[in-house]
Amino acid sequence: MERLLDFRRRCGHLKRTMPDTTRLSPSEVKQLALPGPLSLDCGETLETVRIAYETWGELNADKSNAILVCHALTGDQFAGSDNVVTGRPAWWPRMIGPGKPIDTDRFHVIATNVLGGCMGTTGPASPGPDGKPWGTRFPVITIGDMVRAQRAFIEALGIDSLFSVMGGSMGGMQALEWAVQAPEKVFTAVPIATAARHSAQNIAFYEVGRQAIMADPDWCDGLYLAEGRRPARGLAIARMAAHITYVSESALKRKFDRGLQDREKASFSFDADFQVESYLRYQGHSFVDRFDANSYLYVTRAMDYFDMAARYNGRLAEAFKGTPVRFCLFSFTSDWHYPPEASREITRALAAAGAEVSHLEIESDKGHDAFLLDEPVYEKALAGFLTANAELRGI
Amino acid sequence: MERLLDFRRRCGHLKRTMPDTTRLSPSEVKQLALPGPLSLDCGETLETVRIAYETWGELNADKSNAILVCHALTGDQFAGSDNVVTGRPAWWPRMIGPGKPIDTDRFHVIATNVLGGCMGTTGPASPGPDGKPWGTRFPVITIGDMVRAQRAFIEALGIDSLFSVMGGSMGGMQALEWAVQAPEKVFTAVPIATAARHSAQNIAFYEVGRQAIMADPDWCDGLYLAEGRRPARGLAIARMAAHITYVSESALKRKFDRGLQDREKASFSFDADFQVESYLRYQGHSFVDRFDANSYLYVTRAMDYFDMAARYNGRLAEAFKGTPVRFCLFSFTSDWHYPPEASREITRALAAAGAEVSHLEIESDKGHDAFLLDEPVYEKALAGFLTANAELRGI
Repeated sequence: MERLLDFRRRCGHLKRTMPDTTRLSPSEVKQLALPGPLSLDCGETLETVRIAYETWGELNADKSNAILVCHALTGDQFAGSDNVVTGRPAWWPRMIGPGKPIDTDRFHVIATNVLGGCMGTTGPASPGPDGKPWGTRFPVITIGDMVRAQRAFIEALGIDSLFSVMGGSMGGMQALEWAVQAPEKVFTAVPIATAARHSAQNIAFYEVGRQAIMADPDWCDGLYLAEGRRPARGLAIARMAAHITYVSESALKRKFDRGLQDREKASFSFDADFQVESYLRYQGHSFVDRFDANSYLYVTRAMDYFDMAARYNGRLAEAFKGTPVRFCLFSFTSDWHYPPEASREITRALAAAGAEVSHLEIESDKGHDAFLLDEPVYEKALAGFLTANAELRGI
Repeated sequence: MERLLDFRRRCGHLKRTMPDTTRLSPSEVKQLALPGPLSLDCGETLETVRIAYETWGELNADKSNAILVCHALTGDQFAGSDNVVTGRPAWWPRMIGPGKPIDTDRFHVIATNVLGGCMGTTGPASPGPDGKPWGTRFPVITIGDMVRAQRAFIEALGIDSLFSVMGGSMGGMQALEWAVQAPEKVFTAVPIATAARHSAQNIAFYEVGRQAIMADPDWCDGLYLAEGRRPARGLAIARMAAHITYVSESALKRKFDRGLQDREKASFSFDADFQVESYLRYQGHSFVDRFDANSYLYVTRAMDYFDMAARYNGRLAEAFKGTPVRFCLFSFTSDWHYPPEASREITRALAAAGAEVSHLEIESDKGHDAFLLDEPVYEKALAGFLTANAELRGI
């Protein structure tokens, strides 16, 4: 039972040493306070919102070369450089940098932490109006709200329109949402490994995670920060369940199959005998180190509520009617979290709306996470799309 | 937040009212004590083992018409008649009965609760040698151990050989194991929606469930029964996570899609807004009512350890070399838990071993659970296989 107890001890340990990302100040991460209040889809208003962000490359004189990179559920603003809070490496270093597909010699790249997040942007871990952490008193937000916050932020930077908005997974939902909310503010959009709506299966997986967090006694009905506690075990389990959906069955087989972890034969115990168990436990442990459990609830809920066509009587093409935005979608053949069919659906709607659109289905066995990994065809195609459109725009 | 709190209250409630299946006596369920001790794969020995069972139809004079039906992870011996303990309906009423595919006018049908189970067969909830519940002091068991216990039980009934051994999911693993352990004792075997080995993805999903149970403070390091507690929340979450794998994405879409539960629009809360959430929560709640958390750990572990080829240097065909058993396999096209490819692998190995084998891939969108549901082609084919072989054997 050693590793099992290890796991439980480890969670306890992390709970004590987890960096406090709940009160990050401008001396720790770059932050900008939005100039006005933010109205939310739920009907409530956030009086003060701070957006944490990072940038790479120079903004040109006519401010026409800005690319907004949107992060996925567990990402943050540290897309192109290492996270100064956690010390973790950048999450998209393959894509962002000088001479890379998102070429910082040409583009000014911006990434923000989403509304509801926990890396410096206002979210449930931030102080509420009474100075205590919001906790579950924070209003429930949507992808639409996240994008409205980003739009206010981009405007506050003095940038009138984006050369491109892009992202994978939930980042792709934000790219779609930008194109629909503010088509005149976006020249190109690149939704990657994403969907225009959460499926029943997507909702189901995230619901398991939320229930695991809320069942943890350390969740304290969502007010754990005020009580100096953290539902580390529940959050670790939520991460483990979700992580399975990010990798393909074939990738799990290729990487681990039934390989044993540091042993010759089965231990006949509930120890992490199999490599895949050890890997999953590690995914769970390391996550609680860097993520707030309530943020996990709010951000997954925002994804569950995402259904672009619902606002248009179920007709997705209506959402894009007359759009001037030029789209390039990517999907990955072994992604079963947001499968290629979800991107095909968006592509069909865009075509029906008369939009400029291309969709590349990348052959990959790496599952949903492929959008973050070494996929040369995908990298080349993204670089080509950005270069061609930059030339078109004279950047 | 009402439904969320409801969920938590409900689990608390169930914890108090759950029928005590841990000390079921012969006055409550049919039980047979094995005449001798049982040696286990882990090297330990269980001195006393009781097997809980049910039967339907008459055993014929030469005892040649017995069919053993093996249950899946969360099943029990009540395959063909309602569960007298929980009041739940039989789990295979479509298949077992007079004139049904497993025709009780012709066959003597037997079902046992597996070793490690919690419906009257010896398992972690049973009293250990010191009279206190075994808990996690119970030795870790394998599918091989389950079958050895069944063989001792069948022998104790005075039955020398089975006309057929069959089952779906983990029941199919037992059918395969019987055919390999005791090929001369089995005339036919029907492994349904199963696999000859747990894949990395299978292990991963069950590991999430085990961690959810073990993270529940009411688990008490596995000794909760002795302390009068039950890890109901952890077990509910384990069930929710596993349940997603039992249904296909298309079935979830067909049944629920993004439908809202008893409301016109989203509540902007963590309430069960979506029908699929409500359904999953119900699956979780109702499960803790009838299943022991430690049994869940032990039985899933037994499945994880199942790898039929491993004992034969990775050559599955060697396991079946020269087998006289006549096989009929079933798989379902939308089953992603034990997909058709897993049955094809077994079929290829059986063919390579020169066995009599047929494999029917049933077109179904119902996912893994299809083996329990209304699938007329499957029912007809199973009836045909049994009838033809019964005639061959003069039953």
